[in-house]
This record gives sequence, structure tokens and C-alpha cells, in this order.
Amino acid sequence: MIGFCLVGGGFIGPVHAANIVANPRARLRWVVDVDRAAADKLTGKFGGRATSDLDEALADDAVGAVMICTPPRTHGPIIERAARAGKAVFCEKPIDLDLSRVDACGRVLADTGTPFYVAFNRRFDPSHRALCDAIRAGDIGRTEMLVVSSRDPEISPPDYVAAMPFGIFYDTMIHDFDMLRWLTADEPVEIVAHTACMLDERTNPHHDPDTAMVMLRMAGGALVHVNSSFRAVYGYDQRIEAFGERGMLISQNRQPTTLERYGADGIRRDPLLRFFIERYAESYALELDAFIAAIEARRPPAIGFEDGRRALVIAEAAVTSAKSGAPVAIPR
Amino acid sequence: MIGFCLVGGGFIGPVHAANIVANPRARLRWVVDVDRAAADKLTGKFGGRATSDLDEALADDAVGAVMICTPPRTHGPIIERAARAGKAVFCEKPIDLDLSRVDACGRVLADTGTPFYVAFNRRFDPSHRALCDAIRAGDIGRTEMLVVSSRDPEISPPDYVAAMPFGIFYDTMIHDFDMLRWLTADEPVEIVAHTACMLDERTNPHHDPDTAMVMLRMAGGALVHVNSSFRAVYGYDQRIEAFGERGMLISQNRQPTTLERYGADGIRRDPLLRFFIERYAESYALELDAFIAAIEARRPPAIGFEDGRRALVIAEAAVTSAKSGAPVAIPR
Amino acid sequence: MIGFCLVGGGFIGPVHAANIVANPRARLRWVVDVDRAAADKLTGKFGGRATSDLDEALADDAVGAVMICTPPRTHGPIIERAARAGKAVFCEKPIDLDLSRVDACGRVLADTGTPFYVAFNRRFDPSHRALCDAIRAGDIGRTEMLVVSSRDPEISPPDYVAAMPFGIFYDTMIHDFDMLRWLTADEPVEIVAHTACMLDERTNPHHDPDTAMVMLRMAGGALVHVNSSFRAVYGYDQRIEAFGERGMLISQNRQPTTLERYGADGIRRDPLLRFFIERYAESYALELDAFIAAIEARRPPAIGFEDGRRALVIAEAAVTSAKSGAPVAIPR
Amino acid sequence: MIGFCLVGGGFIGPVHAANIVANPRARLRWVVDVDRAAADKLTGKFGGRATSDLDEALADDAVGAVMICTPPRTHGPIIERAARAGKAVFCEKPIDLDLSRVDACGRVLADTGTPFYVAFNRRFDPSHRALCDAIRAGDIGRTEMLVVSSRDPEISPPDYVAAMPFGIFYDTMIHDFDMLRWLTADEPVEIVAHTACMLDERTNPHHDPDTAMVMLRMAGGALVHVNSSFRAVYGYDQRIEAFGERGMLISQNRQPTTLERYGADGIRRDPLLRFFIERYAESYALELDAFIAAIEARRPPAIGFEDGRRALVIAEAAVTSAKSGAPVAIPR
Repeated sequence: MIGFCLVGGGFIGPVHAANIVANPRARLRWVVDVDRAAADKLTGKFGGRATSDLDEALADDAVGAVMICTPPRTHGPIIERAARAGKAVFCEKPIDLDLSRVDACGRVLADTGTPFYVAFNRRFDPSHRALCDAIRAGDIGRTEMLVVSSRDPEISPPDYVAAMPFGIFYDTMIHDFDMLRWLTADEPVEIVAHTACMLDERTNPHHDPDTAMVMLRMAGGALVHVNSSFRAVYGYDQRIEAFGERGMLISQNRQPTTLERYGADGIRRDPLLRFFIERYAESYALELDAFIAAIEARRPPAIGFEDGRRALVIAEAAVTSAKSGAPVAIPR
Repeated sequence: MIGFCLVGGGFIGPVHAANIVANPRARLRWVVDVDRAAADKLTGKFGGRATSDLDEALADDAVGAVMICTPPRTHGPIIERAARAGKAVFCEKPIDLDLSRVDACGRVLADTGTPFYVAFNRRFDPSHRALCDAIRAGDIGRTEMLVVSSRDPEISPPDYVAAMPFGIFYDTMIHDFDMLRWLTADEPVEIVAHTACMLDERTNPHHDPDTAMVMLRMAGGALVHVNSSFRAVYGYDQRIEAFGERGMLISQNRQPTTLERYGADGIRRDPLLRFFIERYAESYALELDAFIAAIEARRPPAIGFEDGRRALVIAEAAVTSAKSGAPVAIPR
Repeated sequence: MIGFCLVGGGFIGPVHAANIVANPRARLRWVVDVDRAAADKLTGKFGGRATSDLDEALADDAVGAVMICTPPRTHGPIIERAARAGKAVFCEKPIDLDLSRVDACGRVLADTGTPFYVAFNRRFDPSHRALCDAIRAGDIGRTEMLVVSSRDPEISPPDYVAAMPFGIFYDTMIHDFDMLRWLTADEPVEIVAHTACMLDERTNPHHDPDTAMVMLRMAGGALVHVNSSFRAVYGYDQRIEAFGERGMLISQNRQPTTLERYGADGIRRDPLLRFFIERYAESYALELDAFIAAIEARRPPAIGFEDGRRALVIAEAAVTSAKSGAPVAIPR
Repeated sequence: MIGFCLVGGGFIGPVHAANIVANPRARLRWVVDVDRAAADKLTGKFGGRATSDLDEALADDAVGAVMICTPPRTHGPIIERAARAGKAVFCEKPIDLDLSRVDACGRVLADTGTPFYVAFNRRFDPSHRALCDAIRAGDIGRTEMLVVSSRDPEISPPDYVAAMPFGIFYDTMIHDFDMLRWLTADEPVEIVAHTACMLDERTNPHHDPDTAMVMLRMAGGALVHVNSSFRAVYGYDQRIEAFGERGMLISQNRQPTTLERYGADGIRRDPLLRFFIERYAESYALELDAFIAAIEARRPPAIGFEDGRRALVIAEAAVTSAKSGAPVAIPR
């Protein structure tokens, strides 16, 4: 049984809070938010104590793990305070947007020996995981190509976009940068990126890229393509296709029901699940369970600091390539 | 190379004529129609000679086979004349609607030793055939249940319906009565049938059944269900499902293209192929080729007189049950 | 917030207990089982107090509802005791196997004005419900045919089968008898049933029917077919197809992942979800939530006593028909 | 009615010859092959006269069109001789592998006013065409991304590969270079290409690229990705995905049957159609019909000289990029 201190009551906070409550081996002890009302709102629904003072929660011995759900630029200091307080850390991605800040965190984590998990939850999606398992089992032999579609139904609000330029790489495709490392068990050595602004002034006032395609070469020779958009009107479009010497695996999209409607104008099924919270509902619950299991077994969590760091390195290279138009080598 | 005399230039005639022309081992020699203009129209497009006099064509030694595409009630005399002229016979289903007439034909065919094929073309549909092959190969073990959907997009014109009451059994489901014998390699021993008139006065003025469900027991114990309708607005709906001790096989529907359209309101594919001529285009060509191969090899055609007779016996039992509401034993 | 007393810690008990714990408006107060150890096991995992004495739990004012998960033949007395104690009742299907016993229950429920829910959970399955909503919305116009496949991956253990002969109707197809009333908003007037024993001596030593097909006529004229088997080796096969004047709706099967595996021998997807607990996981949680909402709002639960009674009446008629081979009128 | 002189009896020749014979408005007059036996073989099956002397056939006034099915490097002289003889030209792709040779052809075609068709048959595939029609109809609004999978089941024989290095661009992806121009009604301005040799020494002794990914930018801003491989063991994998502001269109793969096999290990469908001759059987017949219709109506054929030239220009740029690793501007 692990006591959790959840930091950040905003967007993704309630998802994690509900999973903590539903998990028989977890307990929600504290919700911390600089906006005390936000913290109160969460504890009102899910239990636990609310505070705006992180130190108060960290001082509680019943807290074994800190779950960080705040905006990316605030992750660093919270990670370090939690690590120094001897708590395990479950951190939303990305670790930070600044690589030197990430590395500073890494040193603190290493010094304190803190168990650290970065929440690339998609690795726990049952279909993506089944695809990975099939690759590992050798079902398609050597993986020769990976083709990933990673599209959101809409762009984030303007202030969120303004706070994280090139979010299409840092916030969205960063999941895919992690996934391609995981699926190929290999590292990319080069990336070339194309971006475009397809949305109009009203929805994308900062003219931040809302459409992107990249190609990568893996050290072992495999070729990878990822494409992304912020206006998949038909829902959250998340497909992974692995092609190899003995076949192909596709993790297909998911829909809310299996209903098929046959009419004179054709056969119609539901649009895709609308948003990542529904699309990845299972993976959020499963990553929490795996984190708890790792902490209890004193094993390192499944996705660690270096995974979070590498994904950021690739995202940075993507941004550089998108700006220059030229291929960019990805440093080790 | 076999010379054909095609009798009946109406509905299905042009389909067979085109296949004869396209088949490298067949030649269209004659088109016979009591309406000489109809015969002329076909020969104008596909070649061969037109006549309204069947005897003229039967006298031609270059004719090796007679293909009968006239209305069911005329089949008997034509079959007998062709048989007595020493020609092989390719006859559209049903052989006749009157069982005593069918039996009379059968005696002539036996006496003359005429190669006879009754055109249950669906046995040649690649998907249905693959299903049959899989059953024969033991893929699902013993077949325990068969569930067949056999639905037309619309009812025939009123005069056609008037000429063949209970056409839903005699004209439509008769294909399925043949298919279930073929797929199970067994005979049905009992049938119970429900019918309904769902169409309105305008499209079904004779109040002939336009909707039907039957259940049959096979001698070997398998249970069979077939359902039919004359208004599948989404196209020609033809599915066969075989359930057995080791699994299930489904021959699914066919569509004109593979296009998928993703929009905010869902994912849409084409409606089904609209009519039996498109739906079974391949099977019409394949049955002709098999008929020719059998004649050339002096083997009996794949679907013979007894097959045509049995399907009619089952259809008659279905009509009897639909009228009485009670189960009806199917005579051997 | 409603306090629950769960009676019967066996098979389905833990499913309901977990849903009670996860539901923010429910609390698990008691688990009652004649086998005290079974009750202890459940409370050990999910909380609440264990007892083998139903009266002890019924005496607790914090208990607002009794959830009955015991074998069917024990339902009657528990329903009546709960009703007389003034508790709402959530009862697993069937209400009882004996119609006179059911009617006795009905009188007690009426006299006491007890809110009563019979757990035909499939009505809450998102895909089946979307199909029902589409029918109600008029998407296919009048429903003309209903074709239902309702197949289990395996037969129940011999002692369970021995305790409920013709369980294929009383225990399995009873769900479909309820569904067809719900989907058509109509009552069946006649049924004809075929059954078979396809399983071997070892798995079905009592030679109870393990395979069945029925056809029904609805009062409004629609035709219905249901088929069932106890050995769908490919998983829990549950499909509903509604055919109407303007189209067709199919609630298709569900699979654990969306992975597609392309190899030289074809394209392979997962088998179906294996058992009803996974297949209907969502519907169990949703029915509980709807029950709570109804109790809180003092509305009758969505599926009431008469629904439970009617399904049993149809099941009895199915058994009679299966034994005689003749169609059986279904009493109102 | 148009008389055809087919030049080149090899690989694709018989496909075109059968379509000429089956088309009611075409007649096969001559088959020309430097290997007279190859010509004889075709005329033996499909009719017409055989010769190894192109001039003999060109001298025949009954010949209205020359269909060129010889290896790419021989196209130029044949095109020019046919043009000077006043015949319409139907030419397999690519026009030639050498751009200056192509341009020389172009001048002759212009001078002689010869109707010229380059056989990018995939534009006539019913599913690809339905996708194009939907784009043109505005179903997805502006096309923002195009993702194309274009994979062959195997590599060509070594001598074929040796004769055309970088055939993955010049011979295979050249179809897709044409398709992307057609689908977007726009021109690409830049390409970046990655290639790899994944096959072993035995199947790819010349170490010619057998795996490739490219990204292109269209003048209008759309982003395009194409990937290709020479070992799709599951069949001929040809998918086009167009993503736009109002949705997505996917032209999916095709399979020989619709059979679904449900077993304990999953649900299996057929592998894809094995080779381009089956996969594109319909498009070969349809392109011929469209060519004949254009000639008869004195309209330019649907896909003309400039289309053939542009596809080659893009293929050359792809080769340049694959060699240098850098993006390459595509000249107008």
C-alpha cells in the first residue's frame, strides 16, 4: 500500500486521482496545488488532504510517492524536492523542456537514489503493448519500417501553445519518440522534420506548427516515419504499424462502440474515441499499477529518467530540423 | 471448344452471353428467343445467329450445349428437346416449379444420358467456396449450426411475382436450400418457416411473402437458420456463417471499393454491391468454365439434376410450413 | 449514497462488490453468505462486514439495498425477506425458475412497494444500447427481423447444469428473450425451438441441450431468430442484428486489443473476449449506477419485476417447444 | 473499334492482350516481339498476327494504336516510330529512364500531334479513384497530408534489378509520384529520401535499395509521405491515406475472398492479393477502355506525356536525395 501526494489538480490530475482511489494498493493522501481551491475540489471528490504547501505534504511519512501533474516548466524543482524528501517520483512527461534543467534533475535523482517514473503511458496501452510483445517474440523478424500516425482532434488553447512553442514535437510527438525507442529497442541517429501551419488564425493565433511529418533512421538501420496533426475531426487517431521481414503488425484505432449502421448511403461506424483521456483510459490505470508494483518490489519503474531525457533530445533535434529544413544528427 | 445455343435473351441472358464470349473454350453460336428482336439484340452485341425457332439451332451440329435462360415454367420442354437433340444442358434454376414436371424431365435426361447442369452459381462464389473448402478441410470440425442471410435489395416487378407465388422460397431461398446441402454434405429432414409481408401495397400488390425465416434440422443433427428479405436498402446482403466444434467461418459481404471515409460523424464505407449480377459476377464466369471443363472431360457437371430437384423439394416444404405454421418433414 | 448488503459471495458476487466499491455513490456494508468463509473472503478484499445471518444485515439501517447473487432457486425467499425489511432489491436473473414462485414474489414486492431491479445487464452494454437508441431514433424504420447470436465459450460445470435443466434457455437465452422485448418494444406471441447435444459425454454428462435455435413471432409482426451454443472456442460471441425498412444495425463482438497481424498465411486479430465478465464489464458497472440513480430519484429501476417474469415465460415456452418439436404460443 | 499493335510479349503483354480481346471496341491486330516465338505464343492464344518486324505492323492501316510493353530503355525509339507512322501510343511506364531521351520523345510527339498515354494504371483502380473523387468533391476540405504505403511482395530478378538501379524509385514509387500529383492536383517542390538494403545477398545481390521512405512538400503546402519495400510477405500492400481539414480518406488493401476464420487462436482473413496483376486487374481493363474512349472522341488520353515526364523528374530527385542524404528541390 503506497500513499500518494498528487501535485497539480489541473487537467490530468483528476484522471490520476481516480486511478489512485480505484487501485487497491494505493491511497490518496494529499493533493497539492498552488491554487488551494483546485486542491480542495479534488480532495472533495476523491478524499485525502488538500494543501498549497508542498513541504507540508512531503513531511508526511505516510506519503511514499509524489505524482507530478503540473505544467512541464515546474517539474524540475518539484522532482528535486520530492527526491530530497525521500519519496518515489511519478512525473508527467516531459521531464522539462530545457535539457540542462533535465540533466540537473537527473543528478539529484542519481544522488538520492530516487525511484523515478516518467509517464509515457502509451507503452501500457493494451494494443500497443501487444504489438511490442509480438515484435519481441519475433513475429515479424527484424523490424524494417515503423509508420506512426499520432493525431489530436484539436489544438490546445492559445496560452498553452504560447507556453510551449513546437508543442507538436515537445508535447505530442514526444510520446512517439519514446514509443519508437521502445518498440525497436534501438536509438535513432538522424531525423528530418517538415512542419506546417494548416489551422486558421483563430484557432492557432501563434502560428505554431499544427501539422508535422518526420523521418528517422535508427542505429540498426530501420526507417521510421511519424506524422501528426492537431485537427483529426474524426477523433483521436493513434496507429502504429511495424513492418518486418516476416510480416506487419498494426495497432489500430479504438471506438466507443462496435455498432455498424447499414443504410442506403453506406455502412457507418462510430468516430474514434474523442480524446486522449478516453483513448488511453486503460493505460493510465495500468501505468499506475506498474509503478506501484515496481516501488513495492524495489525494482526501477518501467520507464525511467533516461527514457524521459532521450525523448526530449529527439524532440529538440526535430525542432532544429523543422527550422533548418535539413536532416539533424541526434546526439547520444 | 464448345458451341452454345443460348435460349432466352432476357434478364440473365446477356450475363451468360458475355461470359461465353470471354471464355476461350466457348463460342456463342445461337441465341433463341420467341421474341426475335430480343435474340437480335444479343447477337448484335455478342455475335452468333439469332432465331425464334429452337429447332433450327438444335439442328446445328456446331452446337454442343444449350443454355436455358427462359422463365422457370418453360424450362421443362426446352430441357427435353435439347436432351433429345443430344445437347448438353446448362439450365437456370429452378428446373421447374412443379415437381412432377421436374421428374418427367429427369426421366428424359436419364434416358438420353444428357449431361445436365443446374445453375446454382453461388457454389462458385470464391468466398462461399473458400468457406466450403475450409469445412471440408476440417477447419471447424463437425458443423453444428449454419446461419445464412440471403437478402435482396428489392422485390421483383408485380407480374414476375404474380407468376411465381412464394418466390421468396422458390426463387430466392432455393439458392440457400442448395447451399446448405452442399456445405453440410447432408440432407435436411425437417423445416419450419415463418413469413411476413412487410412491403407496402404499391411495391408488393400481390401480398406475396417478402420477408421470411426458416429453421431446418439436418439428418446428421446440425441446425440451420436462413433469413430473407426483399428490401435490404444497403445492397445485396449475402452472408454464410458456419459454426462448428473448432470454430466459425463467415463468408462476408462484398463492396465495390475499399474506401473508408473518416468524418466527424463516423467512419463510412460503401454500401454493398447492389445486385446479384455484380455480387456474383465472378461465380457466373466460374460456373460456365466448370461446365465446359466437365463436358470436355466427359464428367458429370458439378451440380446436377438431383441437386436441382432436392432444392425444389425443400422449397415446397417451406411453403407448406409457412402456410400451416407447423414444422414439415422433408421427404427424401 | 446507498449502503449495500450483498448476498452470495460466489461467482458473480466479486464483480458486483468491486463495482460497489468503485462507485462514488455506493458503499458495501455487508456480505452475507451461508458459507461464512466466502463472505469473509469478499469483505477482506472489498471491505464491509461479513455474516452468514441475513437478518443481521437486514437489521442495519445503513443498508438501503440488497443485492442478490445466490443461485436462482434461493432468490424467492431472499427477495421477500429484503422486501419486508424495506430494502430495495437488485436481483440477479432469473428471478426464479418456477413461475408460481416468481408470482408469489411479485405479490410481496407489490404489497411492500419495493423498488426491484432484475439484472439483465446486457441492456447496459454500450454497443447494444447504441443499437437500441438507433432503433428508437427511427434509423432503420420499422424493425422487421432480429437475428441474435448468443454463444458461450463453454458449458457450465456438471452440477450447475444438473441443477438447472434446459439452462440454455433458462440461464443463457433468457438474456436474449429480455433483449428482444426491449429492442422491439413488443411482445413475442409464438416460439419454436430446436435443440441439440453436440458436446461429448465428458463435458455434458447430463445430455442437457448445449446448442439451440429458436424463431419467434412478435405481436407487431417482426420475425426473430436466436441461436446459442456452449462451445464457441473463439470466445464469447454476442451479436445482435436488427433489420428494418431503412437499413440494418449490427452490434458486433468485442476483442481485447485492436492488433492486426499480417503474415504470409493471412491477417489475424485477437479472438473475442473470453468470458461474460470481461465482455460485459462495462454493463455491470453501468447497471449498478443506473440502479442507484433510480433509487435516489425514487424512480422504478430500468428493468423491473415484469421484465424478469416475461423472460421466464418465454424461456418456459421455448422448453415446451424444444420437447414437443411444435410451435408454442407464448401466454400474455 | 480500334486495331492494336502490341509490342513486347513479355511480362505485362498478356495482361494487355487479354483486355484488348475482351474489350468490344478493340481488336488485337499484331503482336510484335524481337523474339518471334514470344509473339507467336501470344497470337496463338489471343489471335492477331505475329511478327518481329515493327515496321510490318506499323504499315497496316488497320492499326490505330501501338501498345508498348517492352523494357523501359527501348520505349523511346518505339514511341517515335509509332508517332511518325501516325499511330496513337499507349506506353507502359516509365516513358524512359533518361530524361533527355524522354524530352526527345516529347518533341516527336508534339511535332506529330500523336495522342499519347502513359500507363499509370493505378489512377483507374476503383478504390483509389473513389478516394480521388472524394477529394475533388471536397469531402475532406483541403488535403493537408498524404500517407502512402506502396509495397511489393518480392524483389525483381537480379538481371531486372541490374538493368534499372534504384528501381524502387524509377519502377515502383514512380506510380506513387504520379498518384500524389493526381490526388493533390499539385506539384511537389522538395523531396528527402531514405533507403536501405534489408534483403540478403541471395535475393538482392546487387545491393540495390529494397526499402525506402520519402517525404515531400507540395507547392500548396501539403506534406506527403511514401514508404516502400520489396518484401511484404503478406501480399501486395497498396494503401493511400488522405488527411484533410474535414476528415480522412483511406483506400484500403484488397483480398481474394471475404472469408473470416474464427478459431481459438484468433480471427483470420486471407492475405492480400499476391501480385500487381491481380491487385490491379480492374484498373488495367479500365485504363484500356478510357484510352480507347479518348482516341475515339479525339480527346487527349487521361494521363499524358507531361505526367510521365514529371513522375520521372521526381524519381530522379529521390535518387539524388537518397545518395546525398539531403533534401533535394524538384525542378519544375
